[in-house]
Amino acid sequence: MSASPLGDMDPETFRREAHRVADWIADYLADPSRYPVLAQVSPGDVRKQLPSDPPDSGESFDVIFSDFEKIILPGITHWNHPGFFAYFAITGSGPGVLAEFLSAALNQQAMLWRTSPSATELEEVVLRWLQRLMHLPDEFEGVIYDTASISTLHALAAAREQVVPAVRERGMAGREDLGRFRIYCSDQTHSSIDKAVILLGLGHESLRKIPTDADFRMRVDALRAAIADDRAEGITPMAVVATIGSTSTTSVDPLRDIATICSDESIWLHVDAAYAGVAAMVPGFEHLLDGVETADSLVVNPHKWLFTPFDLSVLYCRHMDVIRGAFSLVPEYLRTTDPSGIRNLMDTGIQLGRRFRALKLWMVMRHFGAQGLRARLAEHMRLARLFAAWVEASDDFELLAPVPFSVVCFRWKPTAAQSESAIDRANERLLEAINKTGEIFVSHTRLDNKFVIRLAVGNLHTTEVHVRLAWDLLQRHTKTIDPTLNT
Amino acid sequence: MSASPLGDMDPETFRREAHRVADWIADYLADPSRYPVLAQVSPGDVRKQLPSDPPDSGESFDVIFSDFEKIILPGITHWNHPGFFAYFAITGSGPGVLAEFLSAALNQQAMLWRTSPSATELEEVVLRWLQRLMHLPDEFEGVIYDTASISTLHALAAAREQVVPAVRERGMAGREDLGRFRIYCSDQTHSSIDKAVILLGLGHESLRKIPTDADFRMRVDALRAAIADDRAEGITPMAVVATIGSTSTTSVDPLRDIATICSDESIWLHVDAAYAGVAAMVPGFEHLLDGVETADSLVVNPHKWLFTPFDLSVLYCRHMDVIRGAFSLVPEYLRTTDPSGIRNLMDTGIQLGRRFRALKLWMVMRHFGAQGLRARLAEHMRLARLFAAWVEASDDFELLAPVPFSVVCFRWKPTAAQSESAIDRANERLLEAINKTGEIFVSHTRLDNKFVIRLAVGNLHTTEVHVRLAWDLLQRHTKTIDPTLNT
Repeated sequence: MSASPLGDMDPETFRREAHRVADWIADYLADPSRYPVLAQVSPGDVRKQLPSDPPDSGESFDVIFSDFEKIILPGITHWNHPGFFAYFAITGSGPGVLAEFLSAALNQQAMLWRTSPSATELEEVVLRWLQRLMHLPDEFEGVIYDTASISTLHALAAAREQVVPAVRERGMAGREDLGRFRIYCSDQTHSSIDKAVILLGLGHESLRKIPTDADFRMRVDALRAAIADDRAEGITPMAVVATIGSTSTTSVDPLRDIATICSDESIWLHVDAAYAGVAAMVPGFEHLLDGVETADSLVVNPHKWLFTPFDLSVLYCRHMDVIRGAFSLVPEYLRTTDPSGIRNLMDTGIQLGRRFRALKLWMVMRHFGAQGLRARLAEHMRLARLFAAWVEASDDFELLAPVPFSVVCFRWKPTAAQSESAIDRANERLLEAINKTGEIFVSHTRLDNKFVIRLAVGNLHTTEVHVRLAWDLLQRHTKTIDPTLNT
Repeated sequence: MSASPLGDMDPETFRREAHRVADWIADYLADPSRYPVLAQVSPGDVRKQLPSDPPDSGESFDVIFSDFEKIILPGITHWNHPGFFAYFAITGSGPGVLAEFLSAALNQQAMLWRTSPSATELEEVVLRWLQRLMHLPDEFEGVIYDTASISTLHALAAAREQVVPAVRERGMAGREDLGRFRIYCSDQTHSSIDKAVILLGLGHESLRKIPTDADFRMRVDALRAAIADDRAEGITPMAVVATIGSTSTTSVDPLRDIATICSDESIWLHVDAAYAGVAAMVPGFEHLLDGVETADSLVVNPHKWLFTPFDLSVLYCRHMDVIRGAFSLVPEYLRTTDPSGIRNLMDTGIQLGRRFRALKLWMVMRHFGAQGLRARLAEHMRLARLFAAWVEASDDFELLAPVPFSVVCFRWKPTAAQSESAIDRANERLLEAINKTGEIFVSHTRLDNKFVIRLAVGNLHTTEVHVRLAWDLLQRHTKTIDPTLNT
């Protein structure tokens, strides 16, 4: 079929350019380490190469792609680079990328079953697969959102729905029948909890951060005391967020004990397992989520550590009907005569539109298989333990937190440094120096008021060679930094 | 570089499969009409062909792709089909699909400038391009979100931030200093407004739906009266939502008059131009957004009617600092030493993680050029007017709303039908019959308590041939339906 002059890119051009892009991506994914991991550009470098207006006439894809390589690529920080050890080193994969290509072409909008029966039903199937691999109870029902921020937002909205009478209709302002509410999490919890609490109109003050123990796990005694304390003051507990794999250290809150408290007190328990939840499928970690049987909701992100291109976050919930009750609204133009019993995914969320994200998780799980997924997660944990062992064996470095999964928190401890602040400054400069090499990218955090270097293994391209390189670079660069300078 | 046994799909397999998928997509996009537009499956058909557990061992992409064709494809409703006239007929395009392929491969997570300088700066550049094409004032700053639901949520969160003292810290429950608040929209406004109001904890009651005139436009006198009425009762107006292109009829609220009221009353004005905002770039529609100069925010969705694969929604805001003030939270692990003045996109939203969505809008705008974009939008509007003219000239059909853009609201009006409910039922059966053909897919709405068939032109593959086919099918099928049956 020939292209209409007012239609899409003509089919033969599309075919040619699709093959060009396929080859480019194949080359790229075969070896992303040909590029510096951290983009070596300054703010404004990309912007200043681009005109202030779009072209008046259309341009060939050839010219556009050439600008992609010349202007856009230098400003890319390569999350696929094997030396990417920063934040959570999220990882996509070949089958996931191909699925996204298909998904973009199909351009599904899966708001109603009938607007994409396959997206709707495949989502249900793959979320059951993941649920079984993670040993989550069957009673949980899963739904895909874009990010953990949105998954957690829905979990806490459901908690609010249960606790605040008629909140959907009446809201919270100007009501004399309402007192104050409280949500609890540890002082290591992710900032998405803070943002959700703010957005929901509960106020940041309603989030109470429970202190953690020496291993950065929520102190159960402190949680119990905080709840009692709040109740005595007339404040109603709304939810507790327990974290499995906190952002700084990947610490694991004592889920079973927290679950017991929440059951006893009838408080919604949300489990933030965005990063580490998938580890529950690895032999030796079968009991990671023990206690989740009585939890109300759990978030896990296959786009973080399950080889699925960003974005795909999953919320499992034992009371999806509460979320539906909070958000289901069916205007006439979306009313269907489909048989009852079907699931319309627009009813489980704030977003009406939804991409066909299940396709990539399906292709990833099938291509690697359960064994392949487990083996890769186990290998990342092995690499992190290996690095941690080098740190422990070294006189110049020290570990600053346990290593439950694939993240190592450590610092350089130069004997010549005179003070804690000098050590901090030396580590900051060390981090800056190694990130400038373009060979590795690591990030930092603060623990017990110390500046901490954080090495996260999670990228499919990372092997022992790269972890060794990181360790060598760190050691080599300590020799270039004077740790007695405290500036 | 050879693949590690614990790494990604091996590079040569990826290359081979990427070319296979490229060819498949090229064939598909060359003629999506080879498939029925509306999936011809029953609920459960897809699910029952899939196993209840993932495979233990990995499978070849060959097998997976074969299942994609055999199991997934029959359950796809083809939004690319030239006969897709339902809802808003959103459309992707070749350059957009290729950009999404690249974006999936690069797997950028653009939370901070340094985690993706190009995603951060390209977003700024392309949103300026779009802004200029739409004649939006320079003072607006744009940000990309996934959907209009999320864009609008942020706009209303900003309105709440301005009106409710210390809402970020203190929330709204249990506060004696707060009264009730009100948000106004027309009775034709999209359900995402309702959902946002509920999520924000304002309560559905706080949304006041203003009646519309005979052409489904918000009645300005009624808005003014509602505000006065609320103020008299001690209720504080928080925001007005004006719609440019409402969901049922694409009606256009009188923006300038509404803007004047909002200025006079100091009320946040949010403009929902998710579908029709892009029409402002078409000659003859330059004044579509007149009045927006004093609006506070506007949402427009390039994934709806600007040839950009789903998802990409843009929020333009004159006070992005209010949104930043509401949501900016920088935990230590995300603190950077980047020079000041850079934009970290995580600060403008509830979602920490963000995909590299700007790439597709950039490639789409460059490939089609401003002229190409305008010509395609104008053509869709021409096709809708053509169809509307056939309806008007027909004795058996009637138009039920004006056609400002590319959507036609009409119904069959068989002279033999005895009552309004018989006409409704006849139209329902007519809709069902034509959708069953698999040749076209149209949806419905209700207006003035009448069942209305809604034909939306918006797909890049749609030409006059397909609009003519829709008209022929409608006429042909009226002959198969007995309009006197009221069952």
